[in-house]
Amino acid sequence: MPPSENARHVTRELAEFVAASNWRDIPPAVRREGIRGLLNYVGCALGGCGDEAIGLAVRVLAPSFGAPQAGIIGRGERCDALNAAFLNAASANVLEYDDTHLPTVMHPAAPVAPGLFALAETRGASGQDLLHAFILGVEVSCRVGNGLMPHHYRRGAHITATCGIFGAAAASGKLLGLDPVRLNWALGHAATQSAGLVESLGSMSKSIGVGNAARNGLAGALFAAAGFTAAEHAIEGKYGFAAVASDTVDLATMTERLGDRWEILANAYKPYPCGVVLFPVIDACLELRRRLAVPVDRIIGVEVRGHPLLRERTDRPDANDGRSAKVSLQHSVAVALLRGAAGIAQFTDAAVADPVVRELRERVTAQDDPSIPVEAAAVAVRLADGSSVIEQVTDGRGTPGRPMSDIELDAKVSECAAFGAPFVDVPALIAAVRDLAALGDAAHLMRMTTAG
Amino acid sequence: MPPSENARHVTRELAEFVAASNWRDIPPAVRREGIRGLLNYVGCALGGCGDEAIGLAVRVLAPSFGAPQAGIIGRGERCDALNAAFLNAASANVLEYDDTHLPTVMHPAAPVAPGLFALAETRGASGQDLLHAFILGVEVSCRVGNGLMPHHYRRGAHITATCGIFGAAAASGKLLGLDPVRLNWALGHAATQSAGLVESLGSMSKSIGVGNAARNGLAGALFAAAGFTAAEHAIEGKYGFAAVASDTVDLATMTERLGDRWEILANAYKPYPCGVVLFPVIDACLELRRRLAVPVDRIIGVEVRGHPLLRERTDRPDANDGRSAKVSLQHSVAVALLRGAAGIAQFTDAAVADPVVRELRERVTAQDDPSIPVEAAAVAVRLADGSSVIEQVTDGRGTPGRPMSDIELDAKVSECAAFGAPFVDVPALIAAVRDLAALGDAAHLMRMTTAG
Repeated sequence: MPPSENARHVTRELAEFVAASNWRDIPPAVRREGIRGLLNYVGCALGGCGDEAIGLAVRVLAPSFGAPQAGIIGRGERCDALNAAFLNAASANVLEYDDTHLPTVMHPAAPVAPGLFALAETRGASGQDLLHAFILGVEVSCRVGNGLMPHHYRRGAHITATCGIFGAAAASGKLLGLDPVRLNWALGHAATQSAGLVESLGSMSKSIGVGNAARNGLAGALFAAAGFTAAEHAIEGKYGFAAVASDTVDLATMTERLGDRWEILANAYKPYPCGVVLFPVIDACLELRRRLAVPVDRIIGVEVRGHPLLRERTDRPDANDGRSAKVSLQHSVAVALLRGAAGIAQFTDAAVADPVVRELRERVTAQDDPSIPVEAAAVAVRLADGSSVIEQVTDGRGTPGRPMSDIELDAKVSECAAFGAPFVDVPALIAAVRDLAALGDAAHLMRMTTAG
Repeated sequence: MPPSENARHVTRELAEFVAASNWRDIPPAVRREGIRGLLNYVGCALGGCGDEAIGLAVRVLAPSFGAPQAGIIGRGERCDALNAAFLNAASANVLEYDDTHLPTVMHPAAPVAPGLFALAETRGASGQDLLHAFILGVEVSCRVGNGLMPHHYRRGAHITATCGIFGAAAASGKLLGLDPVRLNWALGHAATQSAGLVESLGSMSKSIGVGNAARNGLAGALFAAAGFTAAEHAIEGKYGFAAVASDTVDLATMTERLGDRWEILANAYKPYPCGVVLFPVIDACLELRRRLAVPVDRIIGVEVRGHPLLRERTDRPDANDGRSAKVSLQHSVAVALLRGAAGIAQFTDAAVADPVVRELRERVTAQDDPSIPVEAAAVAVRLADGSSVIEQVTDGRGTPGRPMSDIELDAKVSECAAFGAPFVDVPALIAAVRDLAALGDAAHLMRMTTAG
């Protein structure tokens, strides 16, 4: 039913915007960020494809695999489009190495991209059309999320899943060429399937929420394409998604300046597969290691100064597996100083069990300094000879003041592939993604990332 | 993470209860209501299997059908367990002919039963084990729902879907023989997948929510069985399901008197596939038709007196399709008087288009009478000779004071099968369901209800 007062038509406006959007309407900077988003997505999925959770999910879902039309990034199995969307989304998100839409802390690519590649494999799509649909999907996810913040996330909704499904439905609907009425239905099917809890973070169950966002968003678009009807006012209606999802709803922000302001420009890419607040600390430690004239085993103490949020979120000297190490200051400092790296390999269970790492992390302490912003940190290393070396970082890599460069992003993709899918020809893959808008058959990318 | 204060362990308590439950713990009255619930479920699915929405869903999902291990009630296709659970749940709910848990207005069987039959077909299960798991699943769904009412539903959550998934996961987990830790994970996977909006009612999208509740609940149990971990405090945690789902959470009611008080005893079965408030009105009209000595075309006016809710919900003289006719007083009165029936065939698009029905419904008026309870109504028919005949109903069929008898339930199943799947041997099917606890192979029931 329509909203009782100040009747808006958010669902329809979003559907009409997506349906009407032309490639020539997409500014160059937005296209470029779309490419970067997809490159980061493919890289993260290559890194995550061998994770225990993904292996288990493939085993559980295998009896439900339909026609082998679509690939699973970094792996050899093939399955139907819906299962492929689920598995690739779960894989792209499992390492916590995602893109991040800074205003909402949402990871938009994992839910939005997989359905598009599955459609490209099952029905064909040009690179330009896929990129265009991806940009629009990210736009819809982030705008729905903006309109529900801050209460939606604060209450416990895992926004990557709960809002990602809207972008997945919109993007898939765009690639299917749906008219506004059917795109409206696709968003309606997304609304009634929106799910995901912050409580599930830290367990494998997180991957089910993110996988479902991709799968069910694609399914919503396919249902709508077939004429399966949905609520017209699915988002803004009296008993619609916004009313259920947040006590701080701002419907206007979901549609204002559509096509003018682009949310993907607020997307950042993680330089390290761990908590955002640790980025400047790791930067400082890597720089210290480069500067130190003595071996690391001469370090007798490490003192980290940072915004109080740093200690509140990451003061975990006892992290005992890879998952908890991703939010451990002590572990992150130790591996950055000892290994000169803080990539996927430094946050595995094995890396956490390493006695050398455990020994150093015991000498790491943290001090609050409210004058230091969250994007900054200072790390002081005390050496056996009594001297100290200090490194200060103002803007950590991957924060708004110091976004990941293209070269850094390429290196991240290489690291991910080397970890999870070493058979991939990474330079060729990166070149293909960067030239995606000129690629006639977007499914070619999937063939480059799958085994067998 | 654990709840911050008054730490309860609702998720674990429910898991432990389900895991520990023995068939001998289930009282005879509860077993009997379980049988009735399953009989009503099978009947509704036979009636709904040919609905336009189900046909479309089969078409959309067919490319994603995995191994043909499980049947779709009333139809010929076979598919994997997850898709079968989705389609059978959607089918059982599509006609609005469900069972109804009166305290929550939830329809528990459609989400809970399908996964059990899919498991029986793919892995084998005795009738007793299936019935036992069904009773436990209904218990879990309804108890989670009780603890979130009234705010959960009032805000717009479609409780059949949002809470049905917990019962689906619990029941499937029981049939899989999961230990308490894995049942806890299954409930956790249910929590992070819980979705469904009241706004979607009245569109086909409703069926996606109910279908997903069955599918994703079963998936949650299968994931848990494989060792896929979930949040320990998925329901009661600080960022868990209850916090997200309702502002009027009562965790204690979810677990108090577990195994002593049984929610399935509060389950009712609809005598007519339409809104509950119309039941006493239809009863009165059917009785009037039996009593009238003159042909129905001699009626010049019908006046209905009832609780104000009746007119508020059903005063729809302009219903123009089967779906809206299900909540139209005028249409319901007209078909009951003209056809002597108010079954599935009387709420189709064709029945609504019938000019004779349209002519009579124009002569139907309604009057509020706050002294009449919602379970009651009075209908007065004025005839061409100036006389009037009045019929009063105190407890409509299918209301708590006048529950559907076994004979009435059998007749309903026959009606459903005749409408949607006339090839079914209904007497044999009913006998098999009534004797379910003695059936060695529960999958036999599915073979009796599927074509080919």
